[in-house]
Amino acid sequence: MRAALPFLLLVLTACRPAPETPERTALRIMDESAKAHTAIDAINIRYMRYMNGNMADSVASLFMENGVLMPPNMPAVVGREEIRRFFTESPLPPGAAYTFMAADVVANGPELVERGEFSLALPASGRTPAATVTGKYLVHWRNVGGRWLQAATIWNEDTPVTP
Amino acid sequence: MRAALPFLLLVLTACRPAPETPERTALRIMDESAKAHTAIDAINIRYMRYMNGNMADSVASLFMENGVLMPPNMPAVVGREEIRRFFTESPLPPGAAYTFMAADVVANGPELVERGEFSLALPASGRTPAATVTGKYLVHWRNVGGRWLQAATIWNEDTPVTP
Repeated sequence: MRAALPFLLLVLTACRPAPETPERTALRIMDESAKAHTAIDAINIRYMRYMNGNMADSVASLFMENGVLMPPNMPAVVGREEIRRFFTESPLPPGAAYTFMAADVVANGPELVERGEFSLALPASGRTPAATVTGKYLVHWRNVGGRWLQAATIWNEDTPVTP
Repeated sequence: MRAALPFLLLVLTACRPAPETPERTALRIMDESAKAHTAIDAINIRYMRYMNGNMADSVASLFMENGVLMPPNMPAVVGREEIRRFFTESPLPPGAAYTFMAADVVANGPELVERGEFSLALPASGRTPAATVTGKYLVHWRNVGGRWLQAATIWNEDTPVTP
């Protein structure tokens, strides 16, 4: 027994779960973020198709049950059902198309922040000429059972308000 | 030695660092988020004082070196120095005051998302009567050496654009 004691103490010391150092955490987050960026890019390809096809049900399916959509110049839209209704009642005009792209993705376990840029191409309509609106957004995604879903989404336009 | 073997095997099995289960992760994030909410509320009290006092240096000090500020109706402002310049060149009018409040805080290790609501009280000025603008925001905070700093901040107003 006495011979085993130093070995036992060594094992107990060596295998104590070490808390992750800040440096290790930073490296792990960089690694997870790179992988998550690819995943979000793939989701965004579908997301754009849903948006530009006015597929409100599919757009809403990318949000958490209690997700919050924060469009400019109106109050927040709270919950997947209300978000579905919002996209149903505010379809894009025919020929309009969103393009958006993640500029930065930070993922730590099931929580993810995507910062990105969008443009919205609007075709000519009546006396209004064709135009492109650009803007920026932040999305808080959460991984729920292996799927990234939007917990909170906000955007605004770069264009100055013309009074 | 033989008598110690089962005990040794037990120790080796018991102390293998178990990966965190999704349930445990969710509970840990809830716990961290509650604590972080208190920390963010305290920062926001200072933040409001800096904003409403037009203390551009102090406001900028709450951002990461490469932080991104995304105000409505203008392009993003990138980097603490540019953010400082932005707040220096766009002071609040005398008597104007922001109030903001975190509605939801989610923290996982050094990454934090704050969703909140703000109001901006504007005093009467010339022919323009006093008004209050409300809106919503999302802030991505990162803990750098024990301090929460803004990595990305975006907001928009609830008020419809009047053409």
